[in-house]
Amino acid sequence: MVGQGKPVLLRLGNINFAQDVWDQFSDTVEVLTLNPDTTREDFIKELKNPNGKFAKVSVITRTYHSYLQTGRFDKEIAAALPDSVIAVCHTGAGYDQIDTQYFTERKIQVSHCPNVVNAATADVHVFLLLGALRNFEYGHRNLLAGKWPSSGAGAGAPFGHDPEGKTVGVLGLGGIGRAIVKRLQPFGFKKFIYHNRTRLFPELENGCEYVSFNELLAQSDVISINVPLNANTRHLVNEEAINKMKDGVVLVNTARGAVIDEQAMIKHLKTGKIRSVGLDVFEHEPEVPQELLDMPQVVATPHMGTYCVETLRNMEIHVVDNSKSALKTGKVISLVPEMQSETWVSDCKPIL
Amino acid sequence: MVGQGKPVLLRLGNINFAQDVWDQFSDTVEVLTLNPDTTREDFIKELKNPNGKFAKVSVITRTYHSYLQTGRFDKEIAAALPDSVIAVCHTGAGYDQIDTQYFTERKIQVSHCPNVVNAATADVHVFLLLGALRNFEYGHRNLLAGKWPSSGAGAGAPFGHDPEGKTVGVLGLGGIGRAIVKRLQPFGFKKFIYHNRTRLFPELENGCEYVSFNELLAQSDVISINVPLNANTRHLVNEEAINKMKDGVVLVNTARGAVIDEQAMIKHLKTGKIRSVGLDVFEHEPEVPQELLDMPQVVATPHMGTYCVETLRNMEIHVVDNSKSALKTGKVISLVPEMQSETWVSDCKPIL
Repeated sequence: MVGQGKPVLLRLGNINFAQDVWDQFSDTVEVLTLNPDTTREDFIKELKNPNGKFAKVSVITRTYHSYLQTGRFDKEIAAALPDSVIAVCHTGAGYDQIDTQYFTERKIQVSHCPNVVNAATADVHVFLLLGALRNFEYGHRNLLAGKWPSSGAGAGAPFGHDPEGKTVGVLGLGGIGRAIVKRLQPFGFKKFIYHNRTRLFPELENGCEYVSFNELLAQSDVISINVPLNANTRHLVNEEAINKMKDGVVLVNTARGAVIDEQAMIKHLKTGKIRSVGLDVFEHEPEVPQELLDMPQVVATPHMGTYCVETLRNMEIHVVDNSKSALKTGKVISLVPEMQSETWVSDCKPIL
Repeated sequence: MVGQGKPVLLRLGNINFAQDVWDQFSDTVEVLTLNPDTTREDFIKELKNPNGKFAKVSVITRTYHSYLQTGRFDKEIAAALPDSVIAVCHTGAGYDQIDTQYFTERKIQVSHCPNVVNAATADVHVFLLLGALRNFEYGHRNLLAGKWPSSGAGAGAPFGHDPEGKTVGVLGLGGIGRAIVKRLQPFGFKKFIYHNRTRLFPELENGCEYVSFNELLAQSDVISINVPLNANTRHLVNEEAINKMKDGVVLVNTARGAVIDEQAMIKHLKTGKIRSVGLDVFEHEPEVPQELLDMPQVVATPHMGTYCVETLRNMEIHVVDNSKSALKTGKVISLVPEMQSETWVSDCKPIL
């Protein structure tokens, strides 16, 4: 690279906690960012400009919220990227904002942060699960509304339930699902079952019993949703699936909103088929139906799964690590699963 | 007892879940209850009436909420009880509504439910701890107020914190404290420390390090409060104690509100010395200062520690077991600790 200047990296979205790591990284790369008033149209136009400021970009890093400025990383953006781009490094575990097939076509690697998010996401999951199972939200709302003195025990909430005797069904026993099970094990649930498309090796099952999708729906008192969002999982929990569940089931979703058909869920919360839900994600977030939020059997947080200092810093560092690896070895560290069988990846060459 | 009729039991407060067990118990005892419009004054008058309906009561059972009708089980009530009473069986772990010294003077045993509440209380404790540490309440309020689309990531909540690197200080490592530690251990905290008046046997410490009260205040990032309320613990967490804590400490209280000086806590929530709190109990509950509830760094539930079907049933059954034991053996099963060294207890005679 001598004489050609530093490799160029385009960073989309803010850095909040790993500024020190980025500062150090900037010794070896030129970091470009997007002007706050740049629209998606401007961005795409500039990407296509062979003499523009993005013409030599090797690596793009992006955050979940950069979506609000650039929109999806879809076919249009994939097509607009200069040939110099070798990798898109996403700050998060879920990368459903990226249509990876179009990046595969362009032989651009996509990386994510599959492990550093596990603990923090599992923590919000346990919080929401306990809140939904025990009806804490119900009592909490009445307490805040000044209804405790008048409405008696629990401020008038319906009695909640204990883990005692309950079966937890984990839909998607990956890194986050395993972190959830590990946390829930001391709470005294009767049994953990799980469903993945294929059964895991026993050493990864952590004592959970493998069942079919329909068995999971039929047996679970609590369903813990941890599948990534893609064409196979969109509306996986729909009217038909809900009808196969136990009456009074509790659902917890910290994966992606669109894994559940939100309208079907609202309908069945009203009938009581679904007793309560814990939700960190919503189908059309940040837009959330007020009807859903108004129900006291809904415990909800605004996508705060990894909204914490230590985890965000670790994610920001992991993106630097992926970017560095792409530049130095030609390969990102945490390649998204659907690219892992692509033969062209092994031919990717280092820049630095 | 042949010819004298069944022994008489006075039940104060409602039975919600163990009606079947009580029905069976009623085969061997006559169960009296209080008319809903009976006042404390009426109740005491009737207790004192040597020809009244309570004149032959052997055992009294009571719930936390029966307090609203009878008031404290204090010197006045202890003095009013007929000589026939051998035991007061409380439905709950905490029996701070009962001034046990006056019952000791009358040689009336007091029992409580020390173990059956542990799991459910630990569950709400973990819920509140996660909520306070991660600022979920802050995001939750903004979400419900429709502020998510406009206020960005986390609906504008301050970034929360992870268990990573944090020390949890358990004030009161008894049955509930141990159940909390057991649940928190998989979350990745750095260290657990505890303070009791006397150090526990190592096999009961569950890996927690024993420290002095002042060391616990100084070292903890999160303080988990699990001491019973009595003259020694009232306002244990006061202005002086709070000043010894780390800046930005998180407090969680599922024991009794008056263990904390509520006004001092409010003051230090305002200054930020206390970053956030998780509270299931309040100093003058069900009256709670609106000022406290209005703060988004306060995660609050209206005394729902054991507000759940399975645990309430188990507590109601334990009260029957204590009552039966008192009648059949002369001794309750779960005598309150301060009566355990009383020599008169061993002389108590069965009724049945």
